[in-house]
Amino acid sequence: MEHQEGNNDIESMEGAWRAVERYGSGLNGKEEGGSASEPLLRKLTGNTTSQIAIIGANVCPVESLDYEIVENDVFKEDWRSRKKVQIFQYIVLKWTLALMIGLATGLVGFFNNLAVENIAGFKLLLTSNLMLEHRYLTAFFAYGGINVILAAAAATLCAYVAPAAAGSGIPEVKAYLNGVDAYSILAPSTLFVKIFGSIAGVSAGFVLGKEGPMVHTGACIANLLGQGGSRKYHLTWTWLRYFKNDRDRRDLITCGSAAGVAAAFRAPVGGVLFALEEAASWWRSALLWRTFFTTAIVAVVLKGLIEYCRSGKCGLFGKGGLIMFDVSSSVSTYNTQDLIAIVAIGLIGGVFGALFNYLVNMTLRTYSFINKKGAPFKILLTIIISLLTSCCSYGLPWFASCIPCPEDLQEECPTVGRSGNFKNFQCPSGHYNDLASLFLNTNDDAIRNLFSGGTENEFRISSLLVFFAAIFCLGVATYGIAIPSGLFIPVILAGATYGRIVGTLLGPLSDLDTGLFALLGAASFLGGTMRMTVSVCVILLELTNDLLMLPLVMLVLLLSKTVADCFNRGVYDQMVKMKGLPFMEAHAEPYMRNLVAGDVISGPLISFSGVERVGNIVEALRFTGHNGFPVINEPPFSDAPELVGLVLRSHLLVLLKGKIFTMGRVETGVEEVLQRFGPFDFSKAGLGKGLKLEDLDILEEELDMFVDLHPIANTSPYTVVETMSLSKAAVLFRELGLRHLCVVPKTPGRPPIVGILTRHDFVPEHILGLFPHVSHRHK
Amino acid sequence: MEHQEGNNDIESMEGAWRAVERYGSGLNGKEEGGSASEPLLRKLTGNTTSQIAIIGANVCPVESLDYEIVENDVFKEDWRSRKKVQIFQYIVLKWTLALMIGLATGLVGFFNNLAVENIAGFKLLLTSNLMLEHRYLTAFFAYGGINVILAAAAATLCAYVAPAAAGSGIPEVKAYLNGVDAYSILAPSTLFVKIFGSIAGVSAGFVLGKEGPMVHTGACIANLLGQGGSRKYHLTWTWLRYFKNDRDRRDLITCGSAAGVAAAFRAPVGGVLFALEEAASWWRSALLWRTFFTTAIVAVVLKGLIEYCRSGKCGLFGKGGLIMFDVSSSVSTYNTQDLIAIVAIGLIGGVFGALFNYLVNMTLRTYSFINKKGAPFKILLTIIISLLTSCCSYGLPWFASCIPCPEDLQEECPTVGRSGNFKNFQCPSGHYNDLASLFLNTNDDAIRNLFSGGTENEFRISSLLVFFAAIFCLGVATYGIAIPSGLFIPVILAGATYGRIVGTLLGPLSDLDTGLFALLGAASFLGGTMRMTVSVCVILLELTNDLLMLPLVMLVLLLSKTVADCFNRGVYDQMVKMKGLPFMEAHAEPYMRNLVAGDVISGPLISFSGVERVGNIVEALRFTGHNGFPVINEPPFSDAPELVGLVLRSHLLVLLKGKIFTMGRVETGVEEVLQRFGPFDFSKAGLGKGLKLEDLDILEEELDMFVDLHPIANTSPYTVVETMSLSKAAVLFRELGLRHLCVVPKTPGRPPIVGILTRHDFVPEHILGLFPHVSHRHK
Repeated sequence: MEHQEGNNDIESMEGAWRAVERYGSGLNGKEEGGSASEPLLRKLTGNTTSQIAIIGANVCPVESLDYEIVENDVFKEDWRSRKKVQIFQYIVLKWTLALMIGLATGLVGFFNNLAVENIAGFKLLLTSNLMLEHRYLTAFFAYGGINVILAAAAATLCAYVAPAAAGSGIPEVKAYLNGVDAYSILAPSTLFVKIFGSIAGVSAGFVLGKEGPMVHTGACIANLLGQGGSRKYHLTWTWLRYFKNDRDRRDLITCGSAAGVAAAFRAPVGGVLFALEEAASWWRSALLWRTFFTTAIVAVVLKGLIEYCRSGKCGLFGKGGLIMFDVSSSVSTYNTQDLIAIVAIGLIGGVFGALFNYLVNMTLRTYSFINKKGAPFKILLTIIISLLTSCCSYGLPWFASCIPCPEDLQEECPTVGRSGNFKNFQCPSGHYNDLASLFLNTNDDAIRNLFSGGTENEFRISSLLVFFAAIFCLGVATYGIAIPSGLFIPVILAGATYGRIVGTLLGPLSDLDTGLFALLGAASFLGGTMRMTVSVCVILLELTNDLLMLPLVMLVLLLSKTVADCFNRGVYDQMVKMKGLPFMEAHAEPYMRNLVAGDVISGPLISFSGVERVGNIVEALRFTGHNGFPVINEPPFSDAPELVGLVLRSHLLVLLKGKIFTMGRVETGVEEVLQRFGPFDFSKAGLGKGLKLEDLDILEEELDMFVDLHPIANTSPYTVVETMSLSKAAVLFRELGLRHLCVVPKTPGRPPIVGILTRHDFVPEHILGLFPHVSHRHK
Repeated sequence: MEHQEGNNDIESMEGAWRAVERYGSGLNGKEEGGSASEPLLRKLTGNTTSQIAIIGANVCPVESLDYEIVENDVFKEDWRSRKKVQIFQYIVLKWTLALMIGLATGLVGFFNNLAVENIAGFKLLLTSNLMLEHRYLTAFFAYGGINVILAAAAATLCAYVAPAAAGSGIPEVKAYLNGVDAYSILAPSTLFVKIFGSIAGVSAGFVLGKEGPMVHTGACIANLLGQGGSRKYHLTWTWLRYFKNDRDRRDLITCGSAAGVAAAFRAPVGGVLFALEEAASWWRSALLWRTFFTTAIVAVVLKGLIEYCRSGKCGLFGKGGLIMFDVSSSVSTYNTQDLIAIVAIGLIGGVFGALFNYLVNMTLRTYSFINKKGAPFKILLTIIISLLTSCCSYGLPWFASCIPCPEDLQEECPTVGRSGNFKNFQCPSGHYNDLASLFLNTNDDAIRNLFSGGTENEFRISSLLVFFAAIFCLGVATYGIAIPSGLFIPVILAGATYGRIVGTLLGPLSDLDTGLFALLGAASFLGGTMRMTVSVCVILLELTNDLLMLPLVMLVLLLSKTVADCFNRGVYDQMVKMKGLPFMEAHAEPYMRNLVAGDVISGPLISFSGVERVGNIVEALRFTGHNGFPVINEPPFSDAPELVGLVLRSHLLVLLKGKIFTMGRVETGVEEVLQRFGPFDFSKAGLGKGLKLEDLDILEEELDMFVDLHPIANTSPYTVVETMSLSKAAVLFRELGLRHLCVVPKTPGRPPIVGILTRHDFVPEHILGLFPHVSHRHK
């Protein structure tokens, strides 16, 4: 084993300054000699793999994923020996898993809906019955009490069982699909809490949605199905071995996240586009097809179950179809002043969206101080927000005066009980309270009320303004408490109210329906916060079944995204950054052009000989966190030191477990390894199931024996020359989804490898830490 | 200059055989010594850049595109000097171009529609008026005559003005976006012929559509707008210099192809998805947004113009809205036997789709013999097919007997003239001819008739069967003649007829509408031929405005694609292959795993010194077709031979034009170059506008002078080690969109670069030519 000791600190700093200088002057870029490749970061970060991030409300280590295909004789042999039947098995299993993910996510989505509508429905029915008897205080206590109990239950689950389940989950799934695996983010416990926490949270009347949690749920389901059951109890399926690698797992989780959106919005095409536009970092045409299949299954499951419930077999579950908010406006013409109004909606919606992002970011930072103090504080915070929400929902409608029911109405007015456009609240019969119709409803029903067409005068401006202010503030305040909470519904709710306000104000001037204005307002807010375009557009189309409004929705989305992009980044990107997840963008940052690969490599480099002493390997595995080690052939085995390839920690552990040790430095060869191991023994195990160093029982005398690393080394690692521009190395690293990128020397006569670039080395914080001047000039 | 002379032929062959042997035995993969990296292909292909392909109906050379960013001090300086105002200019221009592409494509799409409906409408009106007067023979001559004239006009345009405009154009656009530029494929003349040839072709009553041509038209428009006008007449715009590179041009053309689909189908979201799923090989999130903007503009333009025409200001232009075939079926429930029927439609549709692809391929191969003989033969073939089509359209309805008009009908029956569900033809008044209602209509109207709901008994089974057989055969026979012709419409037409046949047969058993069956049949055929899923699904949704049928359409698409994939490849992939375009798939072929990068490199390698003799450069440019040359520093400038980087042919030409020559071997440096050239002098010119070797006027005495290549060399070329697995090199090449990939030696003491991989080296024909045994085992 060879520890490449670098130069002393002064020299390292000199190297750093040289790079900055090169950056500064820009033209004399030729002085990189030998020492530019020396590791500079030893003091700053001893161990490149122990990165941490805030996941949910806790701090936990994150790990990089590896999408590189290991090619060497052992694995090539494995691949070559795959017979036709195995390829067939793989294809069948791939589609079966997609089917199962679709089925499971569809069922969970339906169950979620069913539970929420029944729990929230019961709560609202109880409250409104008590109010009919004029027992207003009792009604409030019943309403607020149920809310607090549900909120406390959700927060307790989150705080004690799976802290990773808090929040939306979309940033974490996005980071996973970018190659960052955070501990327990896709674990079964997270799945459990996400499902039940989300039900409790939505039922508790919070201003939050189930969409983000459903995406996370879909991803967890996909991970769980691909991983199989416990190997100890023989619950796993041997076929699943094909999926024990990061690449296939990534594909499954992409399908899962698409299925989650499809289940939440009943929007299969929107789900596919969401996965493509927001969630996934890598995309292939084959994946498009599989994702589409999964979401089609979700749609079929949901449609079937909703059909089944239509006859009233599901308690208080609503009678809606696959289209959640069926807006069938007949008007499809608009004049110039309508267009001006719509442009204004888009522009102002963008400003509001950016403001929302800013406030959410502030709130999250504030709450993280409270959440850090421990589980009881998390629960307390949740209860406080719940009480605040209950007070708003129950208290504010008292300020609205009663409106007489409109005549010639097909609907019941006033409605008593669960849903309906016209809530009775404190009003005498024949009258309704418009603010209560928005507040004392489930969020879905409130959106339906806002989107409904032909109801120009149902809501007064004052009520809409109060509702808008309350929802906007509550939406900001709710996100960040320790329960599963999505952002789509608050944003749609606030946006629809805003759109309806504009529509009501413009009522006399415009031919367009106020429900349509509400739809456009929702689009403008979604564009302003999420910064998605095509997927939001398709999701809105699928939600409302109104294809003729497409050009208007597109226009509003484009405007609001453009305006909001001037202020800050999309809410999910912002959260990924805030959580400290080392997300890699598709493009390289401009300042990377002024650095070369050799400037940022971390050290010390630890490498192995082709046939290495067992003790050295064990020591390296124990005292470093590195996941890849270069293997270098030295004179007995080659004329000059020569790079054989890269061995992975997990493969080393399996090899050591197999104990193909020799007394002297001899190559045992590939056949020995193939005899001892099956083709899938080296495949990556699921979360927490891989071999650990402690699992090895290596005897004292074996430490001085030798093991041949040639068979398991990846003989075709991707390499860059040390003088390669860092921006081009970053593009290579990102596009190919690497975990390790070998840096080789430019001039001969030096070791055959001078360093390894990992994801960490491309993170702006790392680079800017090394070269503080870089950021100032080009931001 | 240094010509790396390889070993003699026997050794080269030995190298090849060694690689095959390694493949065969699989395990002894370590014997690659020095000679494996020697060029093997010298005898097989002297010049790697002179590839040819069949474009349109002609053979022409193809060129690779280069998406690599050149990084060196000159270009870095250029980038760094870009001020904020320039970045702002770039962004504004990017969006302006997207806007202009949208506007232009929308206008062209509308103009196309308008012209077709007027010309075809006039023809049909004339025919039907003559028939009313019982002048049947005159009617046939009028009908057939107009068809032949239009067909001959289209074919003449195609054959003499722009042969590249023949056919669909989608395969060529797809290849362009993959990095293959075929001569004149996006030229203004091609655009002109594509627009007018398509109008004439569609009006001539051929069984072909305008969708493929519209995609090609959109791409041409994008290319033309990005390229600007003539520089000679100062018609170009200096801002456009930002777009003088392959990367930005690719983005523009992606937008253009999406706009084309959006204009053809009036389907903005479908257009984006088409570009994503079928056309583009590289995709970025930013592109999604821009493409979406472009298609939104197209939708707005179309909507505006259609609104304008609604009041009858556009002659015979139809009164349809943005939704082409508005199918509003109210039935959205289906039982088990419906599902079985739908599954059967999907499965059988897949078989038909694969058969269609097979037959189209056969026809193309047959026609290419005729088309090769020259322009008159192309025109003759077109006229023959036109006569055949006219005979079918006019002749076959005579065999159908008259049907009495149904009572209680809102529509006019029988209709006389252009469109309408009930054509009079030879029938007495009060009766209609159902076959004539399909044949003697524009293709769009025939599809609308087939999709129409509530018309179970309008078409008899026998008529539908005749129509199906005729359309299927004519569709196959028409594609491949020398006129712009799309495949979407024939496939939709045949599929809808097939679906309607199934629907009519199942009529008594099923609650579903026959129009819906027609839609599902069209979906099954589209899935079976195009093999697109999400985009076809969305396009069908946008065509028919029927969101509730989504799960069924998805199911049918998935089934038909799966079935058809068992037989052959998608029609566009097949055509790309048949035309000989060196398309690179996203994944590496399995046999590439058994080869290393060194096995396939072509030679001889021609490299330059850091400061090179002008004569050597001129000679190399004249006698090779290479586009990239490695630059190697040698002992006066460095201790050992060292790779400086790669210079491109186009940059060399510009540098030579600048004549920064010195008498001795001295480095002139970056400043000199920056003084002589502006930042955009090195940018890539548009088609046929770049500097050519003949444009240089280098004096005899200058040939012995020297020029410093350091400033223009790309100092960060991507490299692979010669022992890198070919499959991993292919992934690197493809994902990063490279044109040149440098192969460096594994062991020291050899030249610093042993070869350059180009697109050509990854083409299966090349590899299988080298290693004939490879293909047998793994196909």
